[in-house]
Amino acid sequence: MTEVPDVNRQVVLVARPDGIPAPEHFAIRETPVTVAGDGEMLVRNLFLSVDPAQRGYAADVNNYVPPVPIDGVMRGFALGNVVASRHPDYTVGARVMGMFGWQDVAVSDGSDVMFTVPDGDAPLSAYLGILGFSRITAFFGLLGVGKPAHGETVVVSTAAGSVGSAVGQIAKINGCRAVGITGGPEKVALCTEAFGYDAAVDYKADGLAEALAAACPDGVDVYFDNTGGAISDTVLAQMNIGGRIVVCGTAATSSWDPPPQGPRVERTIMIKRLRMQGFVIFDYRESFGEAQKHLADWLAAGDLSYREHVLDGIEHAPSAIQMLYQGQNMGKLTIRL
Amino acid sequence: MTEVPDVNRQVVLVARPDGIPAPEHFAIRETPVTVAGDGEMLVRNLFLSVDPAQRGYAADVNNYVPPVPIDGVMRGFALGNVVASRHPDYTVGARVMGMFGWQDVAVSDGSDVMFTVPDGDAPLSAYLGILGFSRITAFFGLLGVGKPAHGETVVVSTAAGSVGSAVGQIAKINGCRAVGITGGPEKVALCTEAFGYDAAVDYKADGLAEALAAACPDGVDVYFDNTGGAISDTVLAQMNIGGRIVVCGTAATSSWDPPPQGPRVERTIMIKRLRMQGFVIFDYRESFGEAQKHLADWLAAGDLSYREHVLDGIEHAPSAIQMLYQGQNMGKLTIRL
Repeated sequence: MTEVPDVNRQVVLVARPDGIPAPEHFAIRETPVTVAGDGEMLVRNLFLSVDPAQRGYAADVNNYVPPVPIDGVMRGFALGNVVASRHPDYTVGARVMGMFGWQDVAVSDGSDVMFTVPDGDAPLSAYLGILGFSRITAFFGLLGVGKPAHGETVVVSTAAGSVGSAVGQIAKINGCRAVGITGGPEKVALCTEAFGYDAAVDYKADGLAEALAAACPDGVDVYFDNTGGAISDTVLAQMNIGGRIVVCGTAATSSWDPPPQGPRVERTIMIKRLRMQGFVIFDYRESFGEAQKHLADWLAAGDLSYREHVLDGIEHAPSAIQMLYQGQNMGKLTIRL
Repeated sequence: MTEVPDVNRQVVLVARPDGIPAPEHFAIRETPVTVAGDGEMLVRNLFLSVDPAQRGYAADVNNYVPPVPIDGVMRGFALGNVVASRHPDYTVGARVMGMFGWQDVAVSDGSDVMFTVPDGDAPLSAYLGILGFSRITAFFGLLGVGKPAHGETVVVSTAAGSVGSAVGQIAKINGCRAVGITGGPEKVALCTEAFGYDAAVDYKADGLAEALAAACPDGVDVYFDNTGGAISDTVLAQMNIGGRIVVCGTAATSSWDPPPQGPRVERTIMIKRLRMQGFVIFDYRESFGEAQKHLADWLAAGDLSYREHVLDGIEHAPSAIQMLYQGQNMGKLTIRL
């Protein structure tokens, strides 16, 4: 696995999606493998990560990073081996996770490395999942922004997903009531049986407001919002005074151009003294090690459950983001190369 | 002024407004003056306060306090003299500010007193204005929730109003660039000439977005929001990363039933890591003295300017809230009895 391949297969963006990126927006291109220059290294990707944020990367609207250019390699996290190095900090054989893009081989100057995978028994793919970015997102989003107190009720949307399932479990570890919102009876069962939620509700079924109220008899103190849209409108109406809303994702909205309309939130925010706060994990990069240590401890103690959904082969990449937004994955979605 | 009148004129709510309370929703009723029971006192109101929050008090929709009942005395702040007392903490002649309602004489058990007016040279009406509730609102809303840093840009809506004009000045005292949003050229001039704003823009003129961008060349760090609605949509688009929005009022929306629609905010909040937080001054009641001391010091130092708009006679009360929402007042609006 540490050999440099002859050909670099790259998933490139060939058309600008208006909403969710779909197969027609991508092509797989074969290019020669580049040589690492001074201060650079070659990373042979083993797993590509599929993340909701990639919709934003592909869109030509205001975001926290510039859009992927047309004919550019799709931006995305990956996990790989260093197979050649002229970089002082990385030697051949090191395992790294970073923004290496959706391709077989990436040239990296180290600035796109998120962390080096430590030695240990955990399977490599866990570092895209339970010990990876989504879980770090859950950790800082919930504890750093949501700040739930012991005994409070935490509601999570996309509750069975990679971030959501970790939020629910971290909420439980911190003594909260955890309530998940997810789509379909299979995922509802996964939430309560595998991820330890106290209750889970199905947003695809009728009567979400009533189901949520029944699941949250003391109201909602913290809402970890991965969806926005109508689901979040429903949760907002059930927030307690002084509640906090961690805005982490907008999976429910398929296009932001033109901006979709919804009920105005300012009055609810005012009369309930809510705090609605946006969250982007990159702001916490200096503290990843701290989160990974906590997560590894909880994993070792048996407090964290984990599901992964692995697609075999780069040919699945063009449809993977759509699959994620349609909620067809059962756990953290990755592509094995 | 410390005599008990024979008749108590009360402004009562006779119809439930669908939006802004107007003259047809009120009547003035004359009733006998009640006697103070054990533990109670009579307060002879001298000034009634007119506040945006009174729209919410009159409406039959969810709020932080129950609605004023039909045929009930309109809820509102007032400032008056204690003219009879069987209350252990208040003696005849004491000057008190509290939620005494829109009437000549109130029976109070002390729980509705917000503060006792200290001895001093300031005119009595100032305790409904510059040393009163709106300024305390500005103080805690800006410094406690908005938390502007030295050199940051603070934008305020209803900038020439009672709360807004104080926010702008407190922002300046704290070393910020203060930019006001107000309606009409007369108020724009008032903002920059009387209240010390660095710039002010007219939301009634065309091109608010362009005018705001020109007034905020470094973007917006803190938005003290007294309006919500389209004005706030414009400001939100110009917030800097890490910006804070203090949601203090919703003057721009005339009815919340059904909930008005607007562009969804979650994506902007997420990608800019904004903190949007609701604020109700009652939560800070234990700390009013602290704010008044700061405000009195700044007033003595000449750092605070102040305008009041006094209506003479209780007969103006039924149209006063409408006048406030139509922006016809030039400064803190009160009614002198």
